[in-house]
Amino acid sequence: MENYIAEVVGTMILILLGDGVVANVLLRESKGENSGWIVITFGWGMAVAMAVYAVGWISGAHINPAVTIGLASIGAFDWALVPGYIIAQFIGAFLGAVLVWLAYSNHWAGTADPVLKRGVFCTIPQLRNTVANFVTEVIGTAMLVFGVVAIAANAQQISQAGEIDLAPVWQIGIFPLIVGLLVFAIGLSLGGPTGYAINPARDLGPRIAHAVLPIPGKGDSDWSYSWIPVVAPIVGGVIGAWLYNILGFGG
Amino acid sequence: MENYIAEVVGTMILILLGDGVVANVLLRESKGENSGWIVITFGWGMAVAMAVYAVGWISGAHINPAVTIGLASIGAFDWALVPGYIIAQFIGAFLGAVLVWLAYSNHWAGTADPVLKRGVFCTIPQLRNTVANFVTEVIGTAMLVFGVVAIAANAQQISQAGEIDLAPVWQIGIFPLIVGLLVFAIGLSLGGPTGYAINPARDLGPRIAHAVLPIPGKGDSDWSYSWIPVVAPIVGGVIGAWLYNILGFGG
Amino acid sequence: MENYIAEVVGTMILILLGDGVVANVLLRESKGENSGWIVITFGWGMAVAMAVYAVGWISGAHINPAVTIGLASIGAFDWALVPGYIIAQFIGAFLGAVLVWLAYSNHWAGTADPVLKRGVFCTIPQLRNTVANFVTEVIGTAMLVFGVVAIAANAQQISQAGEIDLAPVWQIGIFPLIVGLLVFAIGLSLGGPTGYAINPARDLGPRIAHAVLPIPGKGDSDWSYSWIPVVAPIVGGVIGAWLYNILGFGG
Amino acid sequence: MENYIAEVVGTMILILLGDGVVANVLLRESKGENSGWIVITFGWGMAVAMAVYAVGWISGAHINPAVTIGLASIGAFDWALVPGYIIAQFIGAFLGAVLVWLAYSNHWAGTADPVLKRGVFCTIPQLRNTVANFVTEVIGTAMLVFGVVAIAANAQQISQAGEIDLAPVWQIGIFPLIVGLLVFAIGLSLGGPTGYAINPARDLGPRIAHAVLPIPGKGDSDWSYSWIPVVAPIVGGVIGAWLYNILGFGG
Repeated sequence: MENYIAEVVGTMILILLGDGVVANVLLRESKGENSGWIVITFGWGMAVAMAVYAVGWISGAHINPAVTIGLASIGAFDWALVPGYIIAQFIGAFLGAVLVWLAYSNHWAGTADPVLKRGVFCTIPQLRNTVANFVTEVIGTAMLVFGVVAIAANAQQISQAGEIDLAPVWQIGIFPLIVGLLVFAIGLSLGGPTGYAINPARDLGPRIAHAVLPIPGKGDSDWSYSWIPVVAPIVGGVIGAWLYNILGFGG
Repeated sequence: MENYIAEVVGTMILILLGDGVVANVLLRESKGENSGWIVITFGWGMAVAMAVYAVGWISGAHINPAVTIGLASIGAFDWALVPGYIIAQFIGAFLGAVLVWLAYSNHWAGTADPVLKRGVFCTIPQLRNTVANFVTEVIGTAMLVFGVVAIAANAQQISQAGEIDLAPVWQIGIFPLIVGLLVFAIGLSLGGPTGYAINPARDLGPRIAHAVLPIPGKGDSDWSYSWIPVVAPIVGGVIGAWLYNILGFGG
Repeated sequence: MENYIAEVVGTMILILLGDGVVANVLLRESKGENSGWIVITFGWGMAVAMAVYAVGWISGAHINPAVTIGLASIGAFDWALVPGYIIAQFIGAFLGAVLVWLAYSNHWAGTADPVLKRGVFCTIPQLRNTVANFVTEVIGTAMLVFGVVAIAANAQQISQAGEIDLAPVWQIGIFPLIVGLLVFAIGLSLGGPTGYAINPARDLGPRIAHAVLPIPGKGDSDWSYSWIPVVAPIVGGVIGAWLYNILGFGG
Repeated sequence: MENYIAEVVGTMILILLGDGVVANVLLRESKGENSGWIVITFGWGMAVAMAVYAVGWISGAHINPAVTIGLASIGAFDWALVPGYIIAQFIGAFLGAVLVWLAYSNHWAGTADPVLKRGVFCTIPQLRNTVANFVTEVIGTAMLVFGVVAIAANAQQISQAGEIDLAPVWQIGIFPLIVGLLVFAIGLSLGGPTGYAINPARDLGPRIAHAVLPIPGKGDSDWSYSWIPVVAPIVGGVIGAWLYNILGFGG
């Protein structure tokens, strides 16, 4: 149970700080309005790092169903815990989005464009193309999960992915920062086309919050796109984990 | 007594570097004029990190009454030391603001707008709304104190908040940087509406300096707003500390 | 064989994240369009760091023929392994460029200027001048290889370059980040004139990808310039390694 | 002798990367042209970090006469070594400036404004005022040397400044990065009025290079200002070191 609470809290922090930075950059009359991609990407990178510092030593801080499923797919995480982890991640993501809505409560009415308001909560591709958007999210998430497994393997100096346990890695002072910088790197480099959901809970949880919260002039929640940032990251996460496993470094 | 001196020095460094970066961005003819939110947020983040490197191993570098009171509220800090710590933090914040005034002495007369000059010293909400501004500061400070307690718990690999002692954590090379990056993250993500005081001493100390220092064309010190960045951070700090305590990870 | 696979994977990550950030900044309708030099340089710096975290503990993560040859030239790496390492680096660089092409598949047709498209793959000097461009790349790569050797010597607290072994250095949590920040620093400071190839595989591998991939309206691959970012980094890498060796600190 | 060589090399790296980033931002047709204060300050911060990684474990990497004299003034460094260290720092700074001149050889003729060209080499106050400029440099350098001594004391967990030895501190993986971030912080926060020389060698060495190198249309070297970034940093360095010593934490 403690692990599930930790995933709720970790994902809540992720979205509070992650969707928060998007709110700061997109909403009118915010001090960070139009402050650019470096602010967005550092915001999400530090959001991950802080979530992992906070709860990583307890639950491993997956805070992402793509990580949970990716690890389980190579035998590095118990399938029995997967449903609970994912439910916890979605609850946390929803709560984080509610906190962002509260923290920026002053700024919704004054921001006219409904697309900007939705963009605070969930990703929007710059150019819509199902195959292209799907592939971009697969590549980004494969990079994420490959990186997480590789960092953990390096930190533990082990070679078999099956023995990977994230929680002790996140207790080593530097590593939660490094996984945050991994997400920073993915945002800088692969976030251009789709806004790098790379996490089903990060995208769908806040999208649900967008749909149910009373936001003045909010427009629709773009449900036709919503399956891509759910399915593609899961595919990418499994590919990333398997790629590392197949390489079998040191095995 | 040494702890109190350390809090004076640490808070002085915090404000020298923190208000300093705002001066650099807001004042006319400064090399960093209009250099944006990434400069502001990195400036404050590094200000925290450097203050904690400098004095954290001595006093724990609270440098913030919201941290001091938050920790005391969960039994992680001795209430008997709280008044001395807070007085020291206000003295340090005032002294830091005086140093910023000196370092930028050339630039006050040439900056016409009195709001910019006040903005160097203390926070100004973008859109005034007592409830909304209060809530934003509560959320930001709750995130700060929750994060500080969680980082310390992770570093010490303990579960009971009551045993948390910050000073030894800040002696581990990486952790003062991490708490600086926590403040960087909060600024990026939650600083948009109110400018993230999240620290009564950081806001009120320099506001008093603004009121008493001879600054040409300085305008009023906006006393009607001044209670929000004092009261809300204390509320938020207590909430953040209690949230961590209630979760009772590993307990 | 494992080392060669690690070099393929490491260089692939380098180019996926490195050329990826250039695509994000240069291509039309990308979320990071025109987000500036800080994004480019952080993108490449984090690309190096993540590649070294991923495979550094296995092969030493040279991911750059200039590093491989530079180390071999001072007896710090076995010449017998040099051809295999370099081939692996070029394969990885080519594969990374293909992934960038896929990740940004939506954006090639809409970007009219063929120079921008080529700029995603390989470097373009701002002002063409064979001697000047060559010298700039020599200085940048000498700084890179001198820095890598010096960091490794510091980490191992040894004085004789001949004993340097990178793989164990990259297993110390912080050091892959530091070598990423070294490349960040070189980009910030020395990247202005030529775009800092400082790596033959980084430039020629993606240039070949640019030549063979079906990119709409792609223009030529600028083969007349292509030898400079191959030859100059090798010269610079040898100079950097020898400079460190000649200094013989602590010897 | 080895220590002196290390100071030459370290200061050369400092100026190559530090003046290099200014060249990138100021010179016409450079890829980093007008990329702003965040690039300048990160460039100098990483320049310090890389210099300290490279040679810090040998000589302590003062790379700054204000650090050398500040430490000597509190008995933490041998006065007999001070002249050699300072001479080495000036030689290194001059050599670094020559390398920047070479790396950007293509860009001098095309940059019309002689002030921009001088600005690559040495600092220029935004608003000239002898007392104000002097005070700003004193405050900045006092912060620098206080920070260096405090970081070293923290790392060594000692209390008496007289026993501080920098070289072993810089062998701990994270600390050269932290001192680089200290300079990053000072630039962000206190660099606005004068461009933060905070180092006599950093300013006067490249100014001499500017005077003697054949730079097309270079203009004068602004000798009337040149004494401030030499004298004020020495005053500030001594103040910073003494402040730490007087506090006598843990003594």
